[in-house]
Amino acid sequence: MKRTALFISDGTGITAETLGQSLLAQFDGVEFRYVTRPYVDTEEKARALVEEINIIAGNEEGRPIVVDTIIDTRIRDILEEANAFRVDIFASYLGPLEEELAIRSSYSVGKSHSIAHSRNYMERIDAVHYALDNDDGGRTRHYDSADIILIGVSRCGKTPTCLYMAMQYGIRAANYPLTEDDMDNMLQLPKSLQEHRGKLFGLTIDVDRLAAIRNERKPNSRYSSYAQCEYEVREVENLFARENIKFINTTHFSVEEISAKILVDKGIERRFK
Amino acid sequence: MKRTALFISDGTGITAETLGQSLLAQFDGVEFRYVTRPYVDTEEKARALVEEINIIAGNEEGRPIVVDTIIDTRIRDILEEANAFRVDIFASYLGPLEEELAIRSSYSVGKSHSIAHSRNYMERIDAVHYALDNDDGGRTRHYDSADIILIGVSRCGKTPTCLYMAMQYGIRAANYPLTEDDMDNMLQLPKSLQEHRGKLFGLTIDVDRLAAIRNERKPNSRYSSYAQCEYEVREVENLFARENIKFINTTHFSVEEISAKILVDKGIERRFK
Repeated sequence: MKRTALFISDGTGITAETLGQSLLAQFDGVEFRYVTRPYVDTEEKARALVEEINIIAGNEEGRPIVVDTIIDTRIRDILEEANAFRVDIFASYLGPLEEELAIRSSYSVGKSHSIAHSRNYMERIDAVHYALDNDDGGRTRHYDSADIILIGVSRCGKTPTCLYMAMQYGIRAANYPLTEDDMDNMLQLPKSLQEHRGKLFGLTIDVDRLAAIRNERKPNSRYSSYAQCEYEVREVENLFARENIKFINTTHFSVEEISAKILVDKGIERRFK
Repeated sequence: MKRTALFISDGTGITAETLGQSLLAQFDGVEFRYVTRPYVDTEEKARALVEEINIIAGNEEGRPIVVDTIIDTRIRDILEEANAFRVDIFASYLGPLEEELAIRSSYSVGKSHSIAHSRNYMERIDAVHYALDNDDGGRTRHYDSADIILIGVSRCGKTPTCLYMAMQYGIRAANYPLTEDDMDNMLQLPKSLQEHRGKLFGLTIDVDRLAAIRNERKPNSRYSSYAQCEYEVREVENLFARENIKFINTTHFSVEEISAKILVDKGIERRFK
């Protein structure tokens, strides 16, 4: 079965998209086509969108699913005319929340929010630059201000994880690749890491997967050979065990999952609120 | 008024967090303390959490707000005992969606999903590496495979925007900083950009804001002086106008907003689904 799902917002559409994908992921039997329509912020755009939805409804077996976070009541009213099954987040929850909090929401008065200048936002952007500046062991002198330092072999997922932690949580995450040079001295941690033991967290990865990832980067090289990957992973896992460094195998997890697991494990709270 | 809001999940908690923050941002009069509790995936953890919630409820004026995406019914039942106002996303919407789609959700049978090995996920991670490899004009030879190339003065927001587009949408975004060298030849676009005109999108920024950002990086330098920032911004905005390159002023927008606006404007769809 095929269905179209539209995530509609007068802002970025991230909330509608995130919630919609979570809900629809629970329906294995349906093949969804996802469409995001951000910045539907005029009646004209809303009317064009209703037309688009109605055309889809005419062409497919079932009417489209609409997940929306529209605030403006005029736009809401126009959307109401579309031939769609609507998951209307604000309508579902803001009323009950108003009652619980005994206060009216700005929703009622048609106000929306921008986050660009908040302290939270600047923390996040600073954290992204921190992750970039302290990526791949290039510099170690700023480790004092790190919240966490990820260590592991090359291409085990350190960099995307650091960037995600920065972007999503405002966490200052550095990373240090354990290379063959380090492994020849693997009886102990590299010096630059020794004084930051409390901040270290290890990543590891299945050898097959590592070889596949490295092969895309440098096909048929020693670097991407199974033997080399196997050697590096074994040495690094031994190091984690010997030094009592907690670690996670990234093979079956996304950066979202890896990041959330690390933060729970280290007891780190996001940098804002 | 102060209230604690808990975002609870047996996974990463991102859906609960995103929806919860969107809903609660509509209540200006309340000062929320946000707490995220991911991976609440055992009855034991759920019981400890209920205790935590009840202690908060005892200490604050109003009971906590709980936004959750728990799937396991045993854990759901335990959470039900907490003294909290509950926004129970799956309970609200999965029933109606089951009816609409005429299919049972995997929710009903207690199944959850991991995304780490999907094609979507690999597209995203590849896009992150693409953004890093093609950051800051360091390389221009991979512009053929770019979905978009952001141009603008140093520190106007290009890098975080590229990384966000990669992480969130799987878009391959390169960026090229327009420097003084370019400006001295500003009668035309730098050569490496000319053949990719269709992919270019400009970023600009208010001079005050640019000077403030640069001052944090290199205090009291020529680079961060108001005069220099003013010169660069003017030259670049003139170039955008002359070359008919669409641009956005990033001063009052977050990377989420900038990215969504650019994708709408360029008509780029996310790389997956």
